[in-house]
Amino acid sequence: MVRGGLDLGGTKVEALVVDDANEIRGRARVPTPTEGGPPAVVQALAAAMREAAGGDVEQLAGVGVGAPGEVDAAAGTLARAGNLPEWVDPYPLAAELGRELGLPVRIGNDVRVAVEAERVLGAGRTYRSFLGAWWGTGVGGALVLDGRLWLGRGSAGELGHIVVKLGGRRCPCGRRGCLEAYAGRAAMERTARKAEDAGTKTKLFSIMKKRGRTRLTSGVWAAALEEEDKLAHSLVDEAVEALGAGIGSVQNLLDLDAVVIGGGLGTRLGDPFAERIAAASQPHLFVTERPPAFIVSELGDDGGGLGAALLVSA
Amino acid sequence: MVRGGLDLGGTKVEALVVDDANEIRGRARVPTPTEGGPPAVVQALAAAMREAAGGDVEQLAGVGVGAPGEVDAAAGTLARAGNLPEWVDPYPLAAELGRELGLPVRIGNDVRVAVEAERVLGAGRTYRSFLGAWWGTGVGGALVLDGRLWLGRGSAGELGHIVVKLGGRRCPCGRRGCLEAYAGRAAMERTARKAEDAGTKTKLFSIMKKRGRTRLTSGVWAAALEEEDKLAHSLVDEAVEALGAGIGSVQNLLDLDAVVIGGGLGTRLGDPFAERIAAASQPHLFVTERPPAFIVSELGDDGGGLGAALLVSA
Repeated sequence: MVRGGLDLGGTKVEALVVDDANEIRGRARVPTPTEGGPPAVVQALAAAMREAAGGDVEQLAGVGVGAPGEVDAAAGTLARAGNLPEWVDPYPLAAELGRELGLPVRIGNDVRVAVEAERVLGAGRTYRSFLGAWWGTGVGGALVLDGRLWLGRGSAGELGHIVVKLGGRRCPCGRRGCLEAYAGRAAMERTARKAEDAGTKTKLFSIMKKRGRTRLTSGVWAAALEEEDKLAHSLVDEAVEALGAGIGSVQNLLDLDAVVIGGGLGTRLGDPFAERIAAASQPHLFVTERPPAFIVSELGDDGGGLGAALLVSA
Repeated sequence: MVRGGLDLGGTKVEALVVDDANEIRGRARVPTPTEGGPPAVVQALAAAMREAAGGDVEQLAGVGVGAPGEVDAAAGTLARAGNLPEWVDPYPLAAELGRELGLPVRIGNDVRVAVEAERVLGAGRTYRSFLGAWWGTGVGGALVLDGRLWLGRGSAGELGHIVVKLGGRRCPCGRRGCLEAYAGRAAMERTARKAEDAGTKTKLFSIMKKRGRTRLTSGVWAAALEEEDKLAHSLVDEAVEALGAGIGSVQNLLDLDAVVIGGGLGTRLGDPFAERIAAASQPHLFVTERPPAFIVSELGDDGGGLGAALLVSA
């Protein structure tokens, strides 16, 4: 039976329909509502799923959703989703979307479902133990240890909030010196705006406007790097250095087989940057002669939807 | 049947004889040889074991050894033990000590066996998943995940070489910004010597001489803190801050139940400092409302020998 997978992001909803072999049979994309709160998001998710299923959602065994914020998978609730409209308190996303579609719905953390998809179908499938380092708006993480996602007491994987510099830069989370303060795209944008305000010349914001964006997307960063923008290079260098230190720390602690780099920036910048992050981690590795493999996610933008569909058994 | 456990340290060898209930039935302590290489160390280990067994080693089912440096448990070899005399290349410690005593010998990493002892017999026995943070000459670590030591590919647990400050202080390992550069007793002594050379007043070295020591032992640090030595306080504060950041990073990544603080300094400074490390980690925790328990090792100096004895089945 076919299944549905929804990747709920801050700017767009991606819907996939996959078959028993996890081959993609249908897809759709709709913008994430910027107002109307959780009910509006439920409508957008349902619309995307209906479109991906060609109007026939009854063929689906069920639908999985990968969501940002605090997911309680057992309760089917999502809370504190900062990039979604008016979404603070726990909201029964699984129940409400299930009622809307007339289907069983399961939800999971967005980074975890994408990393689980890499484990089963993608770059992680040949490794027993690996770190998924999701480099995007924030820096997310998920650990696969001995073939299973490691959840801890439910909140494991906060790679972005590893301390790489005591007393260092302020992170969007409010703490100081976190990896995400240097490598998260939102934090990098804030640093770039401050630098421009202080008189540093950069093409970052003119490229952004030319592309009709209001944020420095991964595509804007990639274009600025190609145009040899000095500020873009210096901030990405800094991000790579911080990622190298943070991932090096994880490796010293856990001695993993591999690191899979994903997320918007990770996927967009690709292999050359996975190699640069590997090189940046090398000086921090305690066992220098046996570094982990550094590879880019294979599923790219489809990973979130594929992993969400894996939440549903066929 | 009784079993032997040997804790091989840089300054002393501790030998224990334990019964089936892991109760201690005999003990001995001899200084670690400072010359003569691995054969001299084997003689010292054998002498300590014979003394602990009251001269009758034939009653022992076998002997376990917890050793510093690179342990290959399967091969029974120890290499690169920097605190032991002329010990660089892999040496067949298990086979040579086994021949000397006429008994089966198994070896393990010193921090891992001590943490395993805490898991089975001590502070870790009520937790499924915890970090053993061994605060001594260096900063060692071992992870218990879901009731089992996590080894990775064999080299997991290098807590001391987590990066807490990018571009920070030089670590004894040669790298920069490692936790151990701020919190390892050897690194703290080096910092203290530099400060005294630069004119900072401190009682640390006079206390050391009064006690007939050549190193700033845990007892010297504890005494200097009690005498309100400003430099001692400032360096221990710095160590606590670094431990808080490093352990906070581990917690954000793994979401563990508990942190067990051990090692020479950890055991000596005890509960008040475990509480201070907990407080220092709190500002770095991503999930602030559910910190791990911070507790001091229960087995103290006996943990190494008890854990070594656990390597041998009764």
